Amino acid sequence: MMHIKKSVLAGTICSLLATSIQAATELETLIEILRTNGSIDEDQYGRLKKEIKINNARTASEKNVMKTQLDKSTSVTVTINKGGISAKNRDGSFNIKIGGRVQIDAASYDTETGSTTNYGNGTEIRRARLYVQGKMYNDWRYKLQYDFTSTGKAGIKDAYVSYRGLGDISIKLGNFKDPFMLQEQTSSKYITFTERALPDAFSAGRHIGIMTSTTHKYWTAAFGLFGDTVNTKATSENEGWGVGGRLTHAPVNKKTSIIHFGAAANYRTSSAGSTVRFKQQAETHIAGVNIVDTGEISLVDDYLKLGLEFAAVAGPFSTQAEYLTVSVSRAGENLNFDGWYAEAAYFLTGESRNYKAGKFGSIKPKMIVGREGIGAWQIAARYSTINLNDADINGGEADIMALGINWFPAPTLRFSANYVKVLNVQGGAQNNQEPNLVQVRAQWAF
Amino acid sequence: MMHIKKSVLAGTICSLLATSIQAATELETLIEILRTNGSIDEDQYGRLKKEIKINNARTASEKNVMKTQLDKSTSVTVTINKGGISAKNRDGSFNIKIGGRVQIDAASYDTETGSTTNYGNGTEIRRARLYVQGKMYNDWRYKLQYDFTSTGKAGIKDAYVSYRGLGDISIKLGNFKDPFMLQEQTSSKYITFTERALPDAFSAGRHIGIMTSTTHKYWTAAFGLFGDTVNTKATSENEGWGVGGRLTHAPVNKKTSIIHFGAAANYRTSSAGSTVRFKQQAETHIAGVNIVDTGEISLVDDYLKLGLEFAAVAGPFSTQAEYLTVSVSRAGENLNFDGWYAEAAYFLTGESRNYKAGKFGSIKPKMIVGREGIGAWQIAARYSTINLNDADINGGEADIMALGINWFPAPTLRFSANYVKVLNVQGGAQNNQEPNLVQVRAQWAF
Amino acid sequence: MMHIKKSVLAGTICSLLATSIQAATELETLIEILRTNGSIDEDQYGRLKKEIKINNARTASEKNVMKTQLDKSTSVTVTINKGGISAKNRDGSFNIKIGGRVQIDAASYDTETGSTTNYGNGTEIRRARLYVQGKMYNDWRYKLQYDFTSTGKAGIKDAYVSYRGLGDISIKLGNFKDPFMLQEQTSSKYITFTERALPDAFSAGRHIGIMTSTTHKYWTAAFGLFGDTVNTKATSENEGWGVGGRLTHAPVNKKTSIIHFGAAANYRTSSAGSTVRFKQQAETHIAGVNIVDTGEISLVDDYLKLGLEFAAVAGPFSTQAEYLTVSVSRAGENLNFDGWYAEAAYFLTGESRNYKAGKFGSIKPKMIVGREGIGAWQIAARYSTINLNDADINGGEADIMALGINWFPAPTLRFSANYVKVLNVQGGAQNNQEPNLVQVRAQWAF
Repeated sequence: MMHIKKSVLAGTICSLLATSIQAATELETLIEILRTNGSIDEDQYGRLKKEIKINNARTASEKNVMKTQLDKSTSVTVTINKGGISAKNRDGSFNIKIGGRVQIDAASYDTETGSTTNYGNGTEIRRARLYVQGKMYNDWRYKLQYDFTSTGKAGIKDAYVSYRGLGDISIKLGNFKDPFMLQEQTSSKYITFTERALPDAFSAGRHIGIMTSTTHKYWTAAFGLFGDTVNTKATSENEGWGVGGRLTHAPVNKKTSIIHFGAAANYRTSSAGSTVRFKQQAETHIAGVNIVDTGEISLVDDYLKLGLEFAAVAGPFSTQAEYLTVSVSRAGENLNFDGWYAEAAYFLTGESRNYKAGKFGSIKPKMIVGREGIGAWQIAARYSTINLNDADINGGEADIMALGINWFPAPTLRFSANYVKVLNVQGGAQNNQEPNLVQVRAQWAF
Repeated sequence: MMHIKKSVLAGTICSLLATSIQAATELETLIEILRTNGSIDEDQYGRLKKEIKINNARTASEKNVMKTQLDKSTSVTVTINKGGISAKNRDGSFNIKIGGRVQIDAASYDTETGSTTNYGNGTEIRRARLYVQGKMYNDWRYKLQYDFTSTGKAGIKDAYVSYRGLGDISIKLGNFKDPFMLQEQTSSKYITFTERALPDAFSAGRHIGIMTSTTHKYWTAAFGLFGDTVNTKATSENEGWGVGGRLTHAPVNKKTSIIHFGAAANYRTSSAGSTVRFKQQAETHIAGVNIVDTGEISLVDDYLKLGLEFAAVAGPFSTQAEYLTVSVSRAGENLNFDGWYAEAAYFLTGESRNYKAGKFGSIKPKMIVGREGIGAWQIAARYSTINLNDADINGGEADIMALGINWFPAPTLRFSANYVKVLNVQGGAQNNQEPNLVQVRAQWAF
Repeated sequence: MMHIKKSVLAGTICSLLATSIQAATELETLIEILRTNGSIDEDQYGRLKKEIKINNARTASEKNVMKTQLDKSTSVTVTINKGGISAKNRDGSFNIKIGGRVQIDAASYDTETGSTTNYGNGTEIRRARLYVQGKMYNDWRYKLQYDFTSTGKAGIKDAYVSYRGLGDISIKLGNFKDPFMLQEQTSSKYITFTERALPDAFSAGRHIGIMTSTTHKYWTAAFGLFGDTVNTKATSENEGWGVGGRLTHAPVNKKTSIIHFGAAANYRTSSAGSTVRFKQQAETHIAGVNIVDTGEISLVDDYLKLGLEFAAVAGPFSTQAEYLTVSVSRAGENLNFDGWYAEAAYFLTGESRNYKAGKFGSIKPKMIVGREGIGAWQIAARYSTINLNDADINGGEADIMALGINWFPAPTLRFSANYVKVLNVQGGAQNNQEPNLVQVRAQWAF
């Protein structure tokens, strides 16, 4: 590929410079004619031929200098109109992108009369991330992403290198998301609501590990072996470890028409301390109150999570649903928790949700604000439920109904408003506490 | 605008390539003449015309390829000679800059005989910031700036997006400085002394909020609604909120001659805990000793800050003064604190302080070190005072005299030395403790 | 230099455009001939000359526009194929590079039967750094590097500006490494094993300070005055300070043949608290168990470290050894600790270790993976010892044998595996605890 592209440019430059000589070519033809016709004599002919020869030689040498110069100045192409700054070299063996995202939230909570829980209205920078990612030597990819809303190692999100030199197979090493749960695989920039649905309590999160995966048009598969999280450091005890795999199938995968199925399993031993905890806020993040929470479950050996995924896109309409369950093995009675959610969304402005490699991606408005458009407008509804009550564990059962509206003035900008109504809480510290809330977000990616 | 710029370049390229054909044009004229004169016959004429036609067609097609190539390679312009790296695209709809600042300080303290307070001589990285800022889709601006000398969210300085598509009006959303106090609006890179004057105890700081502002040559206005700081997170209580506005007027605003007036108000409810605290170090930062400090004032409802600003530039001379006052409403007697400062500075090398949009900006030395210059040299003096004694609050009253010298070897570099003499401290924990100190700084922006 | 480079380019462009006129020159010759021969009359001759003149003028003006355009678009050269993104301007007065490194580790520990110390197997992001460095106004260099695996100020690694306008002399100011110890001067990217040898307990580390240094082909010298570390902040006590110097001599310094000698001294007063502590892990970092550790030694006035260095490269073979000693002055008996290490390494694929400015640098594989190569493969062995037992201090004495293998698939990538055997521990908390361990690392720089 490198040679093809190079030769196209080189060809262009040569042709351009050749053009300068073409006039001379025509001139040579004329001179030949004039000599034949006797309009110029042999001496004059010789003089002209010599002059043309000298000039052609000079042009050829200048052509080389120019070619080198232009080659060099166009060897790296810089792009800035897709957010951030990116650059790639001509043969495609290297590229780099520096970018990030910021999400600014505000929330207002309305608790029921007589509620004993105080949520606090307020504002928050939900995420403020910077990343550098790129390609090196054709076959290697890397990414380092940091979230400045966290402290120290906890802020390190993606930090991986991957090798793509084995055909369809990618081998990834470092810190990245376990292959589990559609709403988790989908970037926080592209989820339909500001926060993921209740069963995100069962999220596998990011760990340091190694994963092999393959991506095809109609299916993807990933399997990984993982150590612990970046901010866990083994001292006197071994860290936890896990294995996880995910399979997705998209029998329909067209630009505006998608059907997606997925299944994933994630097994993990408990970290030092032999405990595990499942908890989730009421699809908000500012208050910091967990609507369901098992607390630290002790004497845990290991736990297995299973997930089933469905999603579909039909033009401006999209839907997505997942069922998640976890089995905890411990000294004493084993535990089972589960949850599910289903959401539907519709673009009033006709866009479609973007699907790639077994997850959802960015939204491209048809008409951008400032270019005679109103951006993309999307409305959405979601129902989610989780049950963290089992045996002696009283983590609570909760149902939530959420409504959302998203405005994308341009591909890198998003403004969202969510109304969340907690419908039913049985058990746990928040038993019968059923607040509703409004949460808004401004998001930009660069 | 996009089309204008594009057509200039396209025109250039077309003309250049046309040049190659011009020779052919002259040649065509000659051929016509020779045909008319009978020097070439119809056959020869036809052959030459055909050759010219083929060559012209080839040149036109090459012209298009070349145009596309050159268009692409010059569509983004990268600049690195103003510190950091910046890029903009040809039509001006996008730009990006990655940059930062570092300030390295050292201080030596001289306490009075018998002083019971130990300041500690030492060194410090005062600020170490990195930022990404840019323009997206013509009308949107964003910035994310982090200070690595802080921990976690506290290090997030600017994190905002703004919309400029409404003529003179800018709407800004995210985390940024409240519109209050000239010395606070002016970047820490461009203040005259290494630390801001004593009344910075009344600084409004940065909050998450939304602000509308307008900037004109002779005046600016800004008004914002703010939540709490980035590292405040509502849990069981609502966060504090505030409103603030600032008006500036510059009846004289020329390159080296400026008169500036400003007035600002900032109202804020107390954060969770219903307390507020005003404190300030002795215009130094290394020791960490507050020369005045109210401690946490309890049972506070809200507080209102008012500020008056004056500044002037006359060639190399500049002066700046502010008066600040705060009224605290609380259960019990209300409180009033105030303070003011006045400073004067003079460029020995003839530069002028740079003023724009109601605040001061960067210094451009007339002659750069290394290019046969000595950089810009500035001397300065400042007097400041603050009174945090009122009712039962014994925060202390202090006066400070400071002398400073600044050396700017080049626009991105600054070395400063300050001598600070605490003149008079009445009340508070540092009653009658009147140290003097020398503080030096090396600063570079990139 | 600026003018030379500019004129080369300008010359190229002028010549290119001149080419277009050359055809016209030949044409002019022909016209002169035809006029002489009487093939064209004076009128026709005049018409042709006029046309040529007009066209030549137009070409000259277009030449200027084009020259400006090309000059501008080639004034900054962006490079991405050496990791990260870098840019330099044409005259070399400015450059900038944004890059970083990530190191992902995993370790497994095997303690002896009956050991009372539990190491913990696990994974870790050892380093995740981002930096911006550059040149400003010819004579100034700067760097800001942050390590995201640390918290707050502790993560600030290099943060300095240096002045190079004094011939061979460089003056550096900010936060950077004291000039001490070859294995410390050599970047963690380029050391032979994943962790530095045991005597790194005597590392001088980074401090805020000012250093003058000079680098020549056969020798280097550096001398600096230092304050305390970035995350030490004087409050009630003065910070510690130190002075340090290092001299290196390379009587042989060829591309694949090097002999290096070095000597360094580092004097430092104790920080606030008057204590000092020397400790080191067993050439691993995940477990967090110190195999030797003096604990905090109290009532310390100051301490002096001395180091002797030797290194050699002979083609693919390299060796390196250092002896370090420290004398601690305190109230009571003074203390002496010391240690040394020696290592040897061999590139199976024929590369040589890269030496520059008194320290070792990056490895360039002869054949890159993916370009029909297997990268560079290196094997290594190291013996190291340290003695922290003296007087009443029972920090322990330890010997370690380590074996390593490094694979560099490409210049920016490295995968390493180390086997470490603790041979002998006498005294200290880990008396007779002699574990062995395997540690692996994936590293990429960008």
